Amino acid sequence: MDAPRSPARLAAALTERWSPRVVAELEDVYVKVAKVEGTLVWHRHDDEDELFYVLKGRLRLELEDRAAVALGEGELFVVPKGVGHLPVAEAECHLLLIERKTTRHTGDTTIAQTRSLADQLRPLP
Amino acid sequence: MDAPRSPARLAAALTERWSPRVVAELEDVYVKVAKVEGTLVWHRHDDEDELFYVLKGRLRLELEDRAAVALGEGELFVVPKGVGHLPVAEAECHLLLIERKTTRHTGDTTIAQTRSLADQLRPLP
Repeated sequence: MDAPRSPARLAAALTERWSPRVVAELEDVYVKVAKVEGTLVWHRHDDEDELFYVLKGRLRLELEDRAAVALGEGELFVVPKGVGHLPVAEAECHLLLIERKTTRHTGDTTIAQTRSLADQLRPLP
Repeated sequence: MDAPRSPARLAAALTERWSPRVVAELEDVYVKVAKVEGTLVWHRHDDEDELFYVLKGRLRLELEDRAAVALGEGELFVVPKGVGHLPVAEAECHLLLIERKTTRHTGDTTIAQTRSLADQLRPLP
């Protein structure tokens, strides 16, 4: 990355839902943006924490064995490793995500929306 | 972290300048907020990348051996490990930082504003 990037602008420019794209890397971590709407799928990452930060809109995280978390615009939350979660966006929502590079998109579950790392590393608009 | 947190609100509530505070952790990484104004000090982190994300205002990063980078509101930039840098804020600026937990505040340099990790881990308002 040679120049500054705006996650909010890059997320807004995405055309596909639930298809995260890498905007920055540091150490063994990727910073990604995503545009989401609707419900993804229950999944867990056994070995990786996952940070959700709402750039625009609202996100609900249904969590296994604990109360759901409602994230408003500008709020962040870390889903600890091993905790099953279901991201739900009642309306279009733009996210910034921080994850270890090894983190698979939909964790232990594979669905039509599951994106490979190669997909997530495609150049941004 | 049991509840969502708003980095922008937490950064705005800080009273001390150049005194980062941890708002989230995942894996070996801390996410911090800081309120800055003026000039910090030239320093480098030999082994750690450092991500700067401007929540409010503007930040200039003077960089060793390369052109300075001007970050506007909502923009992020990663200073690669080993690259000397000088953060400059002409006016009050609120930042979100992503760093490895081992990263020392002012890197290889110690000044009056240098903050210990214990300082950075104090409970937030």
